[in-house]
Amino acid sequence: MITINANFLKLQAGYLFPEIARRVAVFARANPSADIVRLGIGDVTEPLPPVIIQAMHKAVDDMADRAGFRGYGPEQGYDFLIDAIIKNDFAPRGVELDRSEIFISDGSKCDTGNFQEIFGLDNVVAVTDPVYPVYVDTNVMAGRTGGRRDGGRYDRIVYMPCTPDNNFVPDIPKEPVDLIYLCYPNNPTGAVATREQLGRWVDYAHRNKALILFDAAYEAFISEKDIPHSIYEIPGAKEVAVEFRSFSKTAGFTGLRCAFTVVPKQVKAYTSDGQAVEVNPIWNRRHCTRFNGASYISQVAAAAVYTTEGKKQVRQIIDIYLANASLIRNELQKLGYEVYGGVNAPYVWLKTPNGMGSWEFFDLLLTKAHVVGTPGAGFGAAGEGFLRLSAFGAPQSVAEAMKRIAEL
Amino acid sequence: MITINANFLKLQAGYLFPEIARRVAVFARANPSADIVRLGIGDVTEPLPPVIIQAMHKAVDDMADRAGFRGYGPEQGYDFLIDAIIKNDFAPRGVELDRSEIFISDGSKCDTGNFQEIFGLDNVVAVTDPVYPVYVDTNVMAGRTGGRRDGGRYDRIVYMPCTPDNNFVPDIPKEPVDLIYLCYPNNPTGAVATREQLGRWVDYAHRNKALILFDAAYEAFISEKDIPHSIYEIPGAKEVAVEFRSFSKTAGFTGLRCAFTVVPKQVKAYTSDGQAVEVNPIWNRRHCTRFNGASYISQVAAAAVYTTEGKKQVRQIIDIYLANASLIRNELQKLGYEVYGGVNAPYVWLKTPNGMGSWEFFDLLLTKAHVVGTPGAGFGAAGEGFLRLSAFGAPQSVAEAMKRIAEL
Repeated sequence: MITINANFLKLQAGYLFPEIARRVAVFARANPSADIVRLGIGDVTEPLPPVIIQAMHKAVDDMADRAGFRGYGPEQGYDFLIDAIIKNDFAPRGVELDRSEIFISDGSKCDTGNFQEIFGLDNVVAVTDPVYPVYVDTNVMAGRTGGRRDGGRYDRIVYMPCTPDNNFVPDIPKEPVDLIYLCYPNNPTGAVATREQLGRWVDYAHRNKALILFDAAYEAFISEKDIPHSIYEIPGAKEVAVEFRSFSKTAGFTGLRCAFTVVPKQVKAYTSDGQAVEVNPIWNRRHCTRFNGASYISQVAAAAVYTTEGKKQVRQIIDIYLANASLIRNELQKLGYEVYGGVNAPYVWLKTPNGMGSWEFFDLLLTKAHVVGTPGAGFGAAGEGFLRLSAFGAPQSVAEAMKRIAEL
Repeated sequence: MITINANFLKLQAGYLFPEIARRVAVFARANPSADIVRLGIGDVTEPLPPVIIQAMHKAVDDMADRAGFRGYGPEQGYDFLIDAIIKNDFAPRGVELDRSEIFISDGSKCDTGNFQEIFGLDNVVAVTDPVYPVYVDTNVMAGRTGGRRDGGRYDRIVYMPCTPDNNFVPDIPKEPVDLIYLCYPNNPTGAVATREQLGRWVDYAHRNKALILFDAAYEAFISEKDIPHSIYEIPGAKEVAVEFRSFSKTAGFTGLRCAFTVVPKQVKAYTSDGQAVEVNPIWNRRHCTRFNGASYISQVAAAAVYTTEGKKQVRQIIDIYLANASLIRNELQKLGYEVYGGVNAPYVWLKTPNGMGSWEFFDLLLTKAHVVGTPGAGFGAAGEGFLRLSAFGAPQSVAEAMKRIAEL
């Protein structure tokens, strides 16, 4: 008799974003003339810049003749892209990496979801609250948690509340934890972590032989000086941290699928009797066995992001989104909302007015202003009473949304 | 202390194909002038046909303007591709499917590796021997097996020998099994399963509440009449089988990454107390949580395969590979080799001469004929004494390889 993985039955019925999509679809069907502005899901809207389009046309033509045709590439990605990443994203920040420490993939959702697989089920997972749901759900599926409690939290996960009181960067928890998910610039709060704050986590990981999974998908949005772009800017981080990067938000690749994971050779995990094991070759084995490389065309497109012209054109798009974020922040503040994020990140995290619940405010925005946000409660219990607005809309749509919110 | 998943430590050091690549690289470095013909890894070599190239150029242009730009697509894939699949691959064979039963992905390696996750660790896995290593390795990683024995087999996996005696289609095993991997047309033996043979497996699955994972990645190479292209041509299969399909070998997408999985609504698994659970929504939850959709460009390319012109152009390429396979078969037979496959599949499975070991014959072919094959032993203990030759090379390379083998 084929048995189901019972851990899947612990999961809440719907992943957050499909649930939002469902509510929006119901409203849209009932109100076909409503002009809905979608600032919910963190999806980009600006078309890809010319340098990326040109690179992809060339890659498509490569596939049309025998000499240029590319079949299976290296599972870890093409060196032309790995070299560009090392040279542009890490070397200028004093971070030296070897080619074998970079793993190109088809997305950070996959990477952050997959990475937990190579660790024991006995590890205690720590996540921020609010949190990107994929970190939690994938650990539930793997069986690293207990059942679901009221309020949507799972037993055996350590939730680290992120609130205005701690500037949305969690304190070291009292109980010991082994696998720590940190995301900065943060989704959903838009907060960043300082060098000193990250240093405390790196110290903790060293002292406790813990591992940090650092999600830097929004790194390109950092606009303030002195905020670290990579966790490897923190001394000692190479021994205790894996870093996830993505082209999705940096360069508008949500439809193209390309990202990468950095796994330094120095990172160790341990057998149950305390013997150190290098994580890099274990991840390499996992990656080669279960993945067959990212699309050649997407990898060529990603390499184009690092050309001189590519950097300029991609920067212009990021500046559009940051201007949107700034507009959202300023308009909400003028209206008296309590607002966070939106300076080094494409997300604004706002306190709902009059103590409204997150989903209640979501429904109000949807039905009265025809604006889609993301209910903070969808990201965790500590997100209750907040709502996330994404700055990825077209500028005129964002302006229209703010006008309608002002009229609420 | 972060502990490693001890199951990964059970794995053999190298995944088969990287080990072949390593040996070839060593030889090539030592013999830089050698003109190596690679018939080892099952990678295509023919460039993509014009209709697919045109479709991709158009998809790239879509990404260049706001109206056409596509960000995140549905995790399950675009309807334009799903509808084309249902209409062309299944409806003409009398198999009715709903959109929600098709899950587009970035490759069958990922799909066949991922699917086991949604089942309990107590299930007994049955695989053919020889077998595509991904089925076994991913179950080892998940912890569904015991340790590795001498000869490379793992405890708690039921290996079903496929030999000339049973025409490479396994008999029903004596011990009860729950999760059965079948691949027809078969990689690596090139064998096909008849309607009657598949019918016996479907009956077995019904009687024992087992599940068949049917890998049909090579379906497009079936050239004989009456061989089923889909397991759903067998009455009752929709209740007990999941099917994997890929554009990699069908249309040369190994570098583009697009495949799909069929999960009929009727497929059930069971809780430990015997309650039936629908598998489709569980897989949907897994797919949406851990995957963010295949590249838009790859999906547009896949849809082009189903146009009138696309079918014609893709057929021409398959015919080139089948002609290669025929040449390999005929030449080897002339030389007195014992040869299987190569009629309904792009692989020829040959018995090594004079009782040589698989790797020994691999090394002989590499060093004396400069031809790369795949040692049968790499696919399992019952593959010892065999070697796989892939028909995916360019026709003149295949001809050259056969000439050199004749001169051995």
